[in-house]
This record gives sequence, structure tokens and C-alpha cells, in this order.
Amino acid sequence: MVKSEDPSIVVGDAAASKKAAKKAAKTAEKQQKKAEHKASSAQPSTESEPDFSEGLYGNMKMIQSSGEHRDRVYTDVENLSIKMDGQTVWVRARLQTSRAKGKQCFAVLRQTSSTVQLLVSVNEQRKISKQMVKFTGNITRESIVDVEASVVRTAAPVESCTIKDVELVAHQIWTVSSARSQLPLQIEDAARPEKSDEPEALKIRVNQDTRLDNRVLDLRTPANQAVFRIEAGVCRLFRDILTKKGFVEIHTPKIISAASEGGANVFTVSYFKSSAYLAQSPQLYKQMAIAADFDKVFTVGAVFRAEDSNTHRHLTEFVGLDLEMSFKQHYHEVLDTIGGTFTEMFRGLRDQFASEIATVGQQYRVEPFKFLDPPLKLEFPQAVQMLKEAGVSVGDEDDLSTPDEKLLGRLVRAKYDTDFYILDKYPLAVRPFYTMPDPGNPKYSNSYDMFMRGEEILSGAQRIHDPDLLAERARLHGVDTSKIAAYIESFRLGCPPHAGGGIGLERVVMLYLGLDNIRKTSMFPRDPKRVTP
Amino acid sequence: MVKSEDPSIVVGDAAASKKAAKKAAKTAEKQQKKAEHKASSAQPSTESEPDFSEGLYGNMKMIQSSGEHRDRVYTDVENLSIKMDGQTVWVRARLQTSRAKGKQCFAVLRQTSSTVQLLVSVNEQRKISKQMVKFTGNITRESIVDVEASVVRTAAPVESCTIKDVELVAHQIWTVSSARSQLPLQIEDAARPEKSDEPEALKIRVNQDTRLDNRVLDLRTPANQAVFRIEAGVCRLFRDILTKKGFVEIHTPKIISAASEGGANVFTVSYFKSSAYLAQSPQLYKQMAIAADFDKVFTVGAVFRAEDSNTHRHLTEFVGLDLEMSFKQHYHEVLDTIGGTFTEMFRGLRDQFASEIATVGQQYRVEPFKFLDPPLKLEFPQAVQMLKEAGVSVGDEDDLSTPDEKLLGRLVRAKYDTDFYILDKYPLAVRPFYTMPDPGNPKYSNSYDMFMRGEEILSGAQRIHDPDLLAERARLHGVDTSKIAAYIESFRLGCPPHAGGGIGLERVVMLYLGLDNIRKTSMFPRDPKRVTP
Repeated sequence: MVKSEDPSIVVGDAAASKKAAKKAAKTAEKQQKKAEHKASSAQPSTESEPDFSEGLYGNMKMIQSSGEHRDRVYTDVENLSIKMDGQTVWVRARLQTSRAKGKQCFAVLRQTSSTVQLLVSVNEQRKISKQMVKFTGNITRESIVDVEASVVRTAAPVESCTIKDVELVAHQIWTVSSARSQLPLQIEDAARPEKSDEPEALKIRVNQDTRLDNRVLDLRTPANQAVFRIEAGVCRLFRDILTKKGFVEIHTPKIISAASEGGANVFTVSYFKSSAYLAQSPQLYKQMAIAADFDKVFTVGAVFRAEDSNTHRHLTEFVGLDLEMSFKQHYHEVLDTIGGTFTEMFRGLRDQFASEIATVGQQYRVEPFKFLDPPLKLEFPQAVQMLKEAGVSVGDEDDLSTPDEKLLGRLVRAKYDTDFYILDKYPLAVRPFYTMPDPGNPKYSNSYDMFMRGEEILSGAQRIHDPDLLAERARLHGVDTSKIAAYIESFRLGCPPHAGGGIGLERVVMLYLGLDNIRKTSMFPRDPKRVTP
Repeated sequence: MVKSEDPSIVVGDAAASKKAAKKAAKTAEKQQKKAEHKASSAQPSTESEPDFSEGLYGNMKMIQSSGEHRDRVYTDVENLSIKMDGQTVWVRARLQTSRAKGKQCFAVLRQTSSTVQLLVSVNEQRKISKQMVKFTGNITRESIVDVEASVVRTAAPVESCTIKDVELVAHQIWTVSSARSQLPLQIEDAARPEKSDEPEALKIRVNQDTRLDNRVLDLRTPANQAVFRIEAGVCRLFRDILTKKGFVEIHTPKIISAASEGGANVFTVSYFKSSAYLAQSPQLYKQMAIAADFDKVFTVGAVFRAEDSNTHRHLTEFVGLDLEMSFKQHYHEVLDTIGGTFTEMFRGLRDQFASEIATVGQQYRVEPFKFLDPPLKLEFPQAVQMLKEAGVSVGDEDDLSTPDEKLLGRLVRAKYDTDFYILDKYPLAVRPFYTMPDPGNPKYSNSYDMFMRGEEILSGAQRIHDPDLLAERARLHGVDTSKIAAYIESFRLGCPPHAGGGIGLERVVMLYLGLDNIRKTSMFPRDPKRVTP
């Protein structure tokens, strides 16, 4: 509905967005029909003039695996280079934009995050007709095309494309899959850098609801292509690092018979003639895996929170990276393992995803993520002291508020030059019932949070492996022990001391990249107001 | 409740199991109290005789990370060897069995799947008292102990342990975590080989419900320790192989607004003031990721089926290994990628998990899994022909029944010597609405299943990427297109031809190992009758 060519229109009003989206869809449908008519009228041989390009362009028959063209070799856009100057290639890519002017049409082809310029120019000898140029100019944006072309060195670098030193000069062009003519958002608007040094009038933005309503288009921006490749990298690094340390991957059930961490914030599922719940975490199951001799385990999977929190960092469904590990004498054996895992992960991201991080940086201002090796470890009373010195009063046995955590993140960064740190020894009162009390000071506990850019991304602790103390603590927290009988029973079967933690994947990616909203790092986010698409 | 020493008792009656389990739990509780009394009476210095072992044995204080013994170095049982003869080591392990006879106590220590013999023998010079021997004899099975001991070469191999050439001679023994005295099942019963050449009277078995009700204990058997390590291996191999091929891992929502594959068999979730569903597959989302330019994607996660199927191979929640991939001209580009992925995975399992596979083989009869490289590919009509020749009549447009599939698996194995094969070109009528019809024969489709030991483990196809044909096929299948509007809309935004498939993790592991029930390969299985533990 919004053309980027018109800088006066700003797509950014959240309230109007849904209505606008509907209206746009209707308009788009009408215009689609028009465009289809137009496109079909641009088919070969409908013009009165003889068309010497016949058979070299048009709408390709739907690819149904008939066996045609199976030997055709395609070149990826990112691999086009000056070395191929003069070669003929086939490319399948999206037509990002096209502009026909008289006897020429300039287009940009895009494949994932790579772009190259395409020239279709009337040339009787090379069998490029006026009709073929017109056809190309009429191909709708975001359509997928097959192009046969010569790779040609450019006189001056093409600054608007990622491939700058060569362009493609078309011999054939066929649409493989046509996009509707009016798109609910333009990729170039969705990809526009969020930088404040541009003139206000040029700030065409796409608001978040419009993006999420049309996620398939929104995900095509270079930044989003990079964000979700980095997210895949976080998962891979997490698993590879832990596998190398001897951890075993497990899978824990999402459908459970009793709320795992208290009755609040849990979704109910109808389960045949009865009902069940969606797991808020794999907590009880990963501990049971420890009691079952798996020694060190991790699990990556969906966790569910029926919390009516509409913030920048809460989702109702997210991906949990959880781990649990038995230890010999001290939970710091586990704490240090987790801390080291983060350090290795940050190093892996920095070294293996430099190009993706740079791509995200072209749209969003990303300060490089700073970390120490080994990571910084503070104790809760030290944090309270730092906050006090900064003029904030926090009770010794209170949890930290979100603003306090953010302030602390800034104080820590100023003092220690790190965006990642571990805060150990939380007050017992603010932690779950299964948290092991500190042996030296009953007000504190053997528990820790870990922070990235001042926001919590991991919560963990030594767990109580003694069934009697566990039952006692559960009762103190008002937990109905009859509902977690199988869990408590696990510790009557012999269980080693153990500790662990749970990480929110989307938060890690958001904070690593310095993004401002968790919906930017969830491919199809779920919150209290959104379950589509 | 069942002692393995009494061979006349067979624990195998499914109907009686729940009741028995409850009764056993009560009995166990009583006996636990007795045992605790007994254990505490075995504490040092309660005997009248002077105890020269005082301070060398007993119940250790709960490990609460006080900082004690932090420099103690522990040796893993699997690393004990003749090279360490004469050395003193600390070992933390489970006491699997103990047998005190006069002045000696023989025990077996177990760590994961490794076992070693422990000897505690009265010896005044080495400060091993009668009381200490008695204490060791009274430690409940499955308790976790810390043992300081000398590694001593054995005169004859200890056939009952995995470590045969050395044993441990105790200096100190401490219980770290005590198991209740009466266990609901014995590990040695649960681990007993299922081989028919044993006398019937020795066949003490633990039935499946008893195992699953007490899963933490059941998982400690060597076979189960191996099964779930192999399962982790399948996941790792699947991801690593695809990542190397350029696939991107994605995460798809489990909470969805409309049933993804028709309205039946879907669980309903109450979602704030409304309701939603649990995804039956990531199908629509992985296809949307393709439309969003991710080109090749995979996802590993929970999928849910509200099917009231109580069979050996159905679960209501299982782990889906899904992949989707765009292709240029023919869906066999994808089919061959998937086939090659399986071949690589089978090779990886065979080469990297030989010891685990052998361990499973000690309890269950496992015929080595046979596969070809490249995998065997048959077309549906060929399968129908093979079945016809074997005397089974199958209609050309019918799906194969489960018994037919199994028979076909046997015929294929006899003819081609492979436990894995691909069956291509299923009748269109038996496939989901989004399946691409065969361009040459409208009765067939560009779809395939893959089989292991005659059971289906993957279903896949070329998908319809043309929005009009997709909507038409959906209507023909009676699917309400208004409910999948966002999905159909994805294909109006330009989408390359693509194909993919979905694999059931638990089935792959079950069939690779030749096990007879899918509950053996799900750590905490969910079926219509089970949501605990």
C-alpha cells in the first residue's frame, strides 16, 4: 500500500495498522487482478509488431517436476564476480525492483541478502525486443524469475547492489512465481536503516504490527535474513560446546499433568476426557534425568508462559536452552561451566558470524558485544553496594527490579568493560522452592542470574537434592507436594548434587545484537495478543 | 517389591501393575523408615566395641557447596584400568549391590553403564573395622557413595562387572545420597536380557507400565543409558549433516490459531480469553520460511497429535525432525538430499555409537541395520506389484496398510538387502491437500514416504507453491481456506518450488535399534493414557 517513492507517507502508526492492513489487502487484490491482466497482455505475440524475442521470455509454466531443464546449472548471486566476466549464466532470484525507460529496463535481482543489477536492453542482433523489455518492466516486485544473462564488468561500481563490479545483461527472462502487484509492505522500507542522522522526511518505516502481520515479506530484509542465521548459530554453538563437554541432549514433555513451577501462568490443554498443562520449563524433567544417571544434560525446546505481559521482552512461547549438571562438591563447578559456555559462544558468534552481524548493523545501530574470559562474577551484596553508591536503595533480601538491573548493567560496563556478567548468591526468599540455601548464611542461596547488556538471560541454581528438605521448602512456598510427588520421589532413589540453568534463546539473540524488542528475534512471535500468522 | 533373587515371581502383568505400584510404594515407605533407622544405627560409635574406622565411613552431610573437599579429584569408573594398579583413587558412584559375609563385604559400584567391584574387608592395620563392613552391607541399593580405595589387580576377571581386571579395595566409604530401601523395581530385573534361550523360570521382567511409572529408575539400565545417547546422536547427526548442506535451523510456534492439517486430532489450549491449538506439525511455518527466502530450513521440536491411538508406534507428543528445501526443477533434488542425509546418519550411528549399539544388543536382540549408498528408491506401482506377487491385493490408488508396509519391508529386504528405502509417487488421493500432483499422471503425486524395517519414518512431498492450485486443492479436501489465509497468501508473495519431509525422532531410534515399542525411545512418553511422570 505504501510506495517508498513517496517520502511523505510514514507507515508507523500501530493503532491504524490492522485496519490499514485489511484495506490494503482488498486494494491489493483488485490491483493484483489488474496486474495479472496487464502481465498476460505482455505475453509474447500479443503486440502487433513482430516479436523477435518470442520464446525467450514470459511466464513459465508452474514447475511441477516434469523433468524439463533438469541439466540447467544455476549460479548464486553471491558468487557472481569479475572472474566470470563474459560468461553466460542462469540465475534464479527475486526481482526486487525494475524500471523500464524506453528501450532499456534496469532491474535489481536479490537472492537472500545478495543483490545484482540486471539490464534488459533492446537489441535486434541479441534478440531482445521492445516487448521483452516491456514485459520485464511489468514483472511485479518480489516475483521469482529465471534469467539467462551474460556477466559483464561495470564501468563504475553499482553502489545500490551488493555485487558492484559486474552486472547481468539478459538473454532470457521467465517468471517462476509471480508476486501480487501491490504488496502490504515494501522490502526497502522494511530494510531502511534506523539512524537518526537522516532527514526526518525520508524516514519511511514499517511499524512492528505491519511487519508481523506480513512476516513472510518482513523476513526477507537483509537484517532479518542475518538475525535468524545468527539465532541458528546460537543454538548450534550452545549444543556443540556442551556436547564437547560431555553433555547429553534430552527431550522433555511439553504436556504435563501438573504445573511445574506453581499454578500461576500456565496454559491449560484439553487432553482427551481430561485436562493437562503446557510446561513452563523443563526444570523437573531435566532434574529427573540427572537422578536417572545422565550426569550432564541439555535440552532445546519450546516453553510456555501464560503471563499477560505485553513488554519488549516477554513472549508467551519461546525457545528454552536448558542445561543441568551433577557436580562433586560445589555448584561453582556448574556455574563456571555455564560461564565458560557463554564465553565460547560469544567468541563463536564474533568469529563465525561477522558478516551477519555487520548486516544487522546496517539497519540497526549495534554496538559490538563485549565480554571477558573468564567472565566477570559478582555476588549479590556487591551489586546492592554498587547500586547504593549510585543512589538507588535496594533491600538486602529484595530481588532487583528491571530498571535496577539495567542500571547495574551500565555500572558494570563502566567499571569492568563487559556486557556479560554473572550475579551469584541471590537472596533465598526471591528464588523458587527447589533452590539450595547457602550453607553459611540462611538469607542467601546457591543461585545465580546471568546478564547481557543489563538484562537477565539466565536464571539458575544448585537444586535441593535432599527429598526431605525439598518437601519442606515446597510446603513453605505453598506448593502442593502431592502434585509433584513423582519429582520429589526421584530424590528418594539417590540423586547426586546438581545445578543448572535456563536460557531464553530469543533474549540472547536480541541482547547480543542490541535490538530493542524480542519480537525481532522470534520468527513467528506469540504474545497475549498475537497467535498469527 | 520384587526381589530378583526370587525367580518365581514374574513382574509382567500390565493390568495389575498400577495397583501393585501403589501398594509397593506404601510398603516401600514403611520399609524405608525401618531402613533409615537401621542405617542410622550403623553410624560410627553406636556399637559397644571401639571402632577404629571412626571418621572413615558414614552418611555424609548433605552437599551444600560449603567449600569442603573442593580439591578432591575423582576418577570415573570407566577409566579404572590395570595401569592404575596400586594407586589410591576417589570414586563417586552408585552402590548397585552389596553383600556382607562375616568380615567382608563385596559391592558393585556403577557409574552410567560402567561397573566395578568394591571390597571392604576387616583389617585393623588399614583401619577397616567390623562396623564399617556392616555399614557398607547396610547401604541401600542405588545410593550414591563416595569411596576412597586402592586399585588392585584381580586374580581372575570379574565377569559380573564391565571393569574386569581391577577391583577397588576401600579405605573410606560415605553415602552422598541414600536411596529408599525398597525400590519399586530392581535395575538388574529391568536390565535382564530379553533372550528366549534362557529357562522360563529365570525370566524376571519388569512390565512397561511399571518401568514408565518409575522411569527415573528404569532409565538407569545400561540399555536405556545407551538408547538415549543414541537418540541424542540422531539429533546431532541430522542437524550437523543439514547444516553442512547449507540448511538454516528455525523454530516454529507450537501454539497456533487454526489446526494446521485439518481439524481432527488437534489439542485445544485455552489462551487468555480465547482458545488456540497445539501444532500437529511445523508444516505451514517451514513452508512460510521458504517463501521468506531461507531457501533450506530444518527444525527439531515437539509436535502434538490428539489421536486416541494406543499402539506400539503412536505417541500424543513426539519430537519432529522436519526439513524443507527449495529446488530448481525437480523435487528429486530434495528427495536425494533427504535420502543422502539418512545414509550419512546411518553411517554416523554405526561408526560413532558402536559401543552404545552393542550395549542395547546385550538386552534386546538387535539385528544390525542395513542400508545402501545411495539408498534404494522404488515407485509406488512397483511396490503394489511386489505385494501382488506376494499374494496381497492392493488398489492402485489406495494407501498401504500397516501390515502391507511391514510385508513390503520384508520383501524389499529379501530382494535388495536393505532396511531403509524410499517409496516415491504415492497416489494423489491419499496425500494432504498441499501435495503437488504428478504432471504426467493426475492419479499420482510428487510425494514419497521413507521406511526403516518396514515402518514409515518420513512422509514428504513437493508442495504446491501456486496459490490458486493450492486453494483449489484445499477446497477439494474440505479445508476451510479462510482459516489458512496467511499460509495461502505466502504464495501470492512469490515462492520458489519446494519440497520437504517430516521425521519422527522416536520412530527412527526405535526402528534403527529394532525395538518393539516407541515408549522405549521417548524419555517421558505421552500417550492417551499417560501424562506422568
